[in-house]
Amino acid sequence: MPNQTYPTRQLCTFLAGLTLADVPAPVVERTKDLYLDWMASAIAGKDAPAVRRLQEFAAAMGPATGDAEVLVDRRRTSPYFAALINGASSHVVEQDDVHNGSVLHPAAVVFPAVLAAAQAEGKTGAEVLLASIAGYEAGIRIGEFMGRSHYRVFHTTGTVGTLAAAAAVAKLYGLDAEGINQALGSAGTQAAGLWEFLRDAADSKQLHTAKAAADGLQSAWLARAGFTGAKQILEGPQGMAAGMSTDANPAALTDGLGTRWATAETSFKFFASCRHTHPAADALKALMQREDLRAEQIEAVTTHVHQGAIDVLGPVVNPSTIHQAKFSMGTVLALVAVHAHAGLGEFEQHALQDARIAAFRDKVTMELDDEINAAYPRQWIGRVTVRTTDGRTLGARVDVPKGDPDNTLSRPELEAKAIQLGAFRHGASEAEMRAIIARVWALDRAPHVNNWLPAQ
Amino acid sequence: MPNQTYPTRQLCTFLAGLTLADVPAPVVERTKDLYLDWMASAIAGKDAPAVRRLQEFAAAMGPATGDAEVLVDRRRTSPYFAALINGASSHVVEQDDVHNGSVLHPAAVVFPAVLAAAQAEGKTGAEVLLASIAGYEAGIRIGEFMGRSHYRVFHTTGTVGTLAAAAAVAKLYGLDAEGINQALGSAGTQAAGLWEFLRDAADSKQLHTAKAAADGLQSAWLARAGFTGAKQILEGPQGMAAGMSTDANPAALTDGLGTRWATAETSFKFFASCRHTHPAADALKALMQREDLRAEQIEAVTTHVHQGAIDVLGPVVNPSTIHQAKFSMGTVLALVAVHAHAGLGEFEQHALQDARIAAFRDKVTMELDDEINAAYPRQWIGRVTVRTTDGRTLGARVDVPKGDPDNTLSRPELEAKAIQLGAFRHGASEAEMRAIIARVWALDRAPHVNNWLPAQ
Repeated sequence: MPNQTYPTRQLCTFLAGLTLADVPAPVVERTKDLYLDWMASAIAGKDAPAVRRLQEFAAAMGPATGDAEVLVDRRRTSPYFAALINGASSHVVEQDDVHNGSVLHPAAVVFPAVLAAAQAEGKTGAEVLLASIAGYEAGIRIGEFMGRSHYRVFHTTGTVGTLAAAAAVAKLYGLDAEGINQALGSAGTQAAGLWEFLRDAADSKQLHTAKAAADGLQSAWLARAGFTGAKQILEGPQGMAAGMSTDANPAALTDGLGTRWATAETSFKFFASCRHTHPAADALKALMQREDLRAEQIEAVTTHVHQGAIDVLGPVVNPSTIHQAKFSMGTVLALVAVHAHAGLGEFEQHALQDARIAAFRDKVTMELDDEINAAYPRQWIGRVTVRTTDGRTLGARVDVPKGDPDNTLSRPELEAKAIQLGAFRHGASEAEMRAIIARVWALDRAPHVNNWLPAQ
Repeated sequence: MPNQTYPTRQLCTFLAGLTLADVPAPVVERTKDLYLDWMASAIAGKDAPAVRRLQEFAAAMGPATGDAEVLVDRRRTSPYFAALINGASSHVVEQDDVHNGSVLHPAAVVFPAVLAAAQAEGKTGAEVLLASIAGYEAGIRIGEFMGRSHYRVFHTTGTVGTLAAAAAVAKLYGLDAEGINQALGSAGTQAAGLWEFLRDAADSKQLHTAKAAADGLQSAWLARAGFTGAKQILEGPQGMAAGMSTDANPAALTDGLGTRWATAETSFKFFASCRHTHPAADALKALMQREDLRAEQIEAVTTHVHQGAIDVLGPVVNPSTIHQAKFSMGTVLALVAVHAHAGLGEFEQHALQDARIAAFRDKVTMELDDEINAAYPRQWIGRVTVRTTDGRTLGARVDVPKGDPDNTLSRPELEAKAIQLGAFRHGASEAEMRAIIARVWALDRAPHVNNWLPAQ
């Protein structure tokens, strides 16, 4: 055997040995928060066209029934197709969580895979929590390892998400370090997802989370069956970093294993838009409250941003779909300025049709800020400069945007958000969502994880 | 709409308009040769452990029956899983075709996808031939577009293969240029496959062809259903070339459309090993015949090679599996020197156990040759220098290795190879293979493409 002390293997050894007793109680509780926030997001993806197409694909290619639950249609299928559809629906309303340092959306890829596999294997809530934590800890570190150069072209949640899902399901299956390593090998050699779709407002973002969850599950399943993959898939000379990064940092793969809990560093979304818009939206909201400004009094807004915001949001000039509008800095700030919030309802009702939003959108520009760029991705600082119609120049800055770990959502806020997400497309009634909430807060004691929503 | 004259779109417009009447008759006939060579290769993948694991995965996750045929077990499933398993089995004995300029193995990804989709849709043999030609023409040009820098880290058959399969199935479905473009968008954002597995002799090569075929089919299926993808997935600023190539050449995408038939440039494998070993193997064989040398008279062999051979074969020093031995230059030359051929039988019986092979293997080295490297990948020149035990230094060179279009296999040679591949793991009897051969030579007049092998 080759040297077993390479960083990927050290990560696998940590994951294989991890027990729920090793994880601090607040991290376990935070994982429940993340799970609830994910399930509500996945339910809210109901009826989105891209998700519908994947449901049709699953009906054509998959089995007619199975052990795993599809949240948006309450049917059952095999774990592969449940992970595929739940993965797609998790990300479509852009309300799912994000980890700053890795720029990974862990929930959308980890939970769909874990839940589908757990339902087929009869696993407990505690096993689901532990596997999910393993997926978050692995995925976040792998995202940090791949670096900023990767994220410029690749949608990290698609690429790295495949490995996060694989690590989670491999842990759920109880694989040892060797097995988890094999699963990561198969996952890494399938890792894909390019940002090019942003220019066309295409459906690829849903395909990325769908395939990351499903292919991650597949990689773990195959590893358990004895199918092998490259051991040094991350750091090897023809591995992921060699092909898709110019600033990979192997030390990130093992950073603080067992002491740093990356899971608890994950942020919740308060606005229903791309996370890159949130710091500026918070700063604009704070400025308008402080100065008692109305939208009509604003002539121009300059947002001072990191390069990643320009890379992802820059291609979106004139959004033609609600989903694309979530990647338009101007639209998000317009909704905050005109309607005081950029939530799901504001996007549905105002993002595209409202002339005031279009007018305000064109007043917003992005400008690269060296300090903010240097702090990113560890810190997502929001700063705006506003020029008013009466000639004043005003500034505001928010160091910790709403939803970040140091400014997180409380459980009442998370519950309210979950109920709103359930109601969005009538994916779950308030009573159903309250039942889900109660189950999630007791997830560590749940004997099984089946039947979240009754068949209709 | 954005400008519709970008290279990817021009390629899609050509593919959408292509009819079998546009294709010269010798190219159609050559496509039948390629189809036969593929089907025999796919049948020979029977019982390979990696293929078995994917059959088990399909049994767990897919439907119990369906319209599409799995060649290695003669069962039926949905097109997605048939493409997956037939894609895996096509490539495992390393006897499937290769296109020099793109370093793509088109058969292993195009035919599994087209056959599975055609069986579900009741298509004719002529439609299968046309769709396959579309897949070859697209895939080869996309492989050439991605360039040599891509191939250094990425297994082009995994990455570009996904788009080749998508183009083929999109054509089979009768999509227009817009639809084919959407299919390529979804395929390109799923394109993956890293060479890192070579170091571990891992199963990823089968996963790459399996997923390329299945995901390509999925991309076309989704495009037909209205699922969108990035239009400039190849040449766009956050597309495949931006992320995975440093020498991409957009002109390659439209090179000679309608006049140059890349399909007919594809080479057949004469040896059962990685194509990068073939030119040197041919040269050594020619030298030993010319000088009437026996293996025992050879003290050292220097192979003068292109960089791609070093990238792919270099990591394999001490092969531990038969599949890995196919990527060992020393093993292949040893089989040629000791047993006069490096076919399936020689690999099975001698590649690992035979002390003479191991001894000869260690006499073989690779050396980068500037002239050969400059000619590659358009020309795969073989050159060896041999030092004999009696102190002579001898050289030989082969400009066109056996199996290349200018030194191709005849139909009798292809038939004999197919029968041998069928017999290899008892995948098909000689009578069954002769029936397949007769059907393939008449494929352009076949009313359907079902039931190649009777259920057992």
